[in-house]
Amino acid sequence: MNGAIFIVGIGPGGAEHMTPAAVAAIERADVIVGYRTYLAQITHLARQIRREASGMRQEVERVQAAVDLAVAGQRVAVVSGGDAGVYGMAGLVYEVLAERGIEDLAVEVIPGMSALNAAAALLGAPLMTDFAVISLSDQLTPREAIMHRVTAAAQADFVICFYNPQGRTRVAPWQQACALLAQHRLPSTPVGVVRNATRPDQSVQIMTLADLPQAEVDMLTLVIVGNSTTIAHDGRMITPRGYQAKYDLTAPAPARSARRGKVAAEQEE
Amino acid sequence: MNGAIFIVGIGPGGAEHMTPAAVAAIERADVIVGYRTYLAQITHLARQIRREASGMRQEVERVQAAVDLAVAGQRVAVVSGGDAGVYGMAGLVYEVLAERGIEDLAVEVIPGMSALNAAAALLGAPLMTDFAVISLSDQLTPREAIMHRVTAAAQADFVICFYNPQGRTRVAPWQQACALLAQHRLPSTPVGVVRNATRPDQSVQIMTLADLPQAEVDMLTLVIVGNSTTIAHDGRMITPRGYQAKYDLTAPAPARSARRGKVAAEQEE
Repeated sequence: MNGAIFIVGIGPGGAEHMTPAAVAAIERADVIVGYRTYLAQITHLARQIRREASGMRQEVERVQAAVDLAVAGQRVAVVSGGDAGVYGMAGLVYEVLAERGIEDLAVEVIPGMSALNAAAALLGAPLMTDFAVISLSDQLTPREAIMHRVTAAAQADFVICFYNPQGRTRVAPWQQACALLAQHRLPSTPVGVVRNATRPDQSVQIMTLADLPQAEVDMLTLVIVGNSTTIAHDGRMITPRGYQAKYDLTAPAPARSARRGKVAAEQEE
Repeated sequence: MNGAIFIVGIGPGGAEHMTPAAVAAIERADVIVGYRTYLAQITHLARQIRREASGMRQEVERVQAAVDLAVAGQRVAVVSGGDAGVYGMAGLVYEVLAERGIEDLAVEVIPGMSALNAAAALLGAPLMTDFAVISLSDQLTPREAIMHRVTAAAQADFVICFYNPQGRTRVAPWQQACALLAQHRLPSTPVGVVRNATRPDQSVQIMTLADLPQAEVDMLTLVIVGNSTTIAHDGRMITPRGYQAKYDLTAPAPARSARRGKVAAEQEE
């Protein structure tokens, strides 16, 4: 059997953020399987390739179809937005292969840039310290488990990135999360709300935790809640790494710092 | 003043994982400033460009030099491994600009693929559920705060990604973290240890939490500790998203699932 499955992260949206490895995997495939929105994101690639589009909430059928095609000898690219390895299709492909007892199939995950990396760059530098990534979709995870994580992350002063904050009908987890955050963070805590990062209709907002419950968020929105050290400055959201405590950042650079090829002995950043 | 600073994430290592946006920013620059290892990673780009290399632990001098060059009118690319926005140089650049009161300088963060995305892809699919990202370097963060986060993440059943697990001389935080994990996770918990992801001397290991204290880890190693649902199967580390609870993954795909252009009404994944 010469079939194969490439699980490809096509990045947050803009073609300029899709890696050469992802492009190569798609060009190498006989069939591309994915949610129609993601297939539309790569129409500039491989126009001749057969495409199998499906709707949301049909991931299982999509992956079963991809596995069937691969078992039949096709090279199948299963595309995911952002990184296929972060809440993406990679896990489901491996789950289906394991459940069906298929072990002699070539499977490769081609990582992509996550939406959270794109959103953080648009906001400034909110992820300079430890952070937690939480999906508020309770379709596959019990809500109690999600809220336990929200509380733990808030108490331990993690910066928190929320995926899938709110669905068209699913609003309770978001309201509950906002209430929990308000118990552990100051109302003035900076929060970044990014929708459709790197896509044509991108929107980027920096607000405070106090205003967050009134913000419009949906499945295309990523929310980054600052921790106790995060600041909003000059239109940017910044979580200082902690250099101020050790260095005078107002000092001009010593001449030697710009000497070409300078190398220090230390082995740690 | 026409100077500008592009803070560029050049990806985990392999050129095939560097985005076109990152390449374009480097090609657009007059000067590239960065740690020598990262400059070596992009020697195939922009050979004519002036390069200012510096050693580790010299980030502040490096960024001060970059800001001085930009203020003098140069377009400066500050390069970071992985994503400049995840424990990278983005925060320090903004901190220095804020401390020095410089607000009329064009600054752009070009996000890159994080080491954690590359490591996860090599391991299988460990990040299908909520995860926490923690650096064990206690140079700029109090160790108590780090260990509080390790405990909170372990208790709330986050998958945990450790950056900078151990330095040549700094071993205590790693030993302490392993001890804390052992209190909250089963010894059989799968753990992925990836060194130099996507680089020529890449190494990928899947082991158990019981064996983790004996593992060789350093500043080039990323460690991903599974949660209570993570399994090791067929040489892969997989954290199921939870589909088995709702779907029969052994069932073949219904014909309709492969119908071209099929679109569902639901708006949620």
